[in-house]
Amino acid sequence: MRILGLDPGSIATGYGLVERRGTRVVHVTHGTLRPPRGSALPDRLAFLHREIVRILAEHRPELAVIERIFAGRSVRSALVLGQARGVALAAIAATGIPISEVSPQQVKFAVTGSGAAEKTQVQAMVRRLLALATAPPRDASDALAAALCCAQQGRLWALQQSHLNRVGERPSGRERGHAI
Amino acid sequence: MRILGLDPGSIATGYGLVERRGTRVVHVTHGTLRPPRGSALPDRLAFLHREIVRILAEHRPELAVIERIFAGRSVRSALVLGQARGVALAAIAATGIPISEVSPQQVKFAVTGSGAAEKTQVQAMVRRLLALATAPPRDASDALAAALCCAQQGRLWALQQSHLNRVGERPSGRERGHAI
Repeated sequence: MRILGLDPGSIATGYGLVERRGTRVVHVTHGTLRPPRGSALPDRLAFLHREIVRILAEHRPELAVIERIFAGRSVRSALVLGQARGVALAAIAATGIPISEVSPQQVKFAVTGSGAAEKTQVQAMVRRLLALATAPPRDASDALAAALCCAQQGRLWALQQSHLNRVGERPSGRERGHAI
Repeated sequence: MRILGLDPGSIATGYGLVERRGTRVVHVTHGTLRPPRGSALPDRLAFLHREIVRILAEHRPELAVIERIFAGRSVRSALVLGQARGVALAAIAATGIPISEVSPQQVKFAVTGSGAAEKTQVQAMVRRLLALATAPPRDASDALAAALCCAQQGRLWALQQSHLNRVGERPSGRERGHAI
């Protein structure tokens, strides 16, 4: 099973592909999508869409994973991040593969054993778990960590996350910090 | 000059096309894009992308207009709206046509003569200005109003809006209610 992890952002979007072979999880590729500097927002979003479509066509993952966004941020950053995230979700859903959403805590726990791990710990563990010569850049590392999180749990678990997210799409809770 | 107005939303996205012929502005078409009920967010976003690409290919507008989003809303609604908006911007920018962003006040003023007009006034004026037999549904009416706003001002003005938005993309202001 080949899994694509994505960490979308307005400036840079990290991606990482891993493959589960029996009980092993191996690294396929990773990278950071960076629209040309100074380009306008719509052009950056079009670039992001095109690149994600290219990655999906080239590597044909069977499952995609994206981190849930939490509401504990500013309205402005939510809007900016939402725009990049919407483009990523649309590009993946157009291929028909299931999309799992995982919480940052789930990812940290899966990779480091602690839901409260620091970013640098996650980066170091991603490098170690995938036996990489050097640590991937932050965005790509986060994407690989999300993919690893799903790979460790297996396909059924991943589909359940996707199902739960579909059912829970319109939560009634208004408290800060709820998943969106 | 053919202009596409878009009013993106997570549940429904209005669109409206008008054409400027000399000093006249005529109605081309309008409608509301509604993803199948109960479908998951990624599937709704993929539907939105596909439909906007279809509209662009079918009607070949030379300019697109989308309302600026203001920060005076909840983090959650900003994220949800941002996702739909990102998909719309990416689909349009991929065709290479310029995208103007206009404020709700500019649209209201252009259509009714008052920047503080009620939604129903806008709806009634859109119907009257475009000589439509019935008032278009709310989302489509808002999209037509945005297109009308640009059509009345002309291409140079529209391009200036687009330029201003590109330059002003990363405002330093943190006050509530600033354009995003």
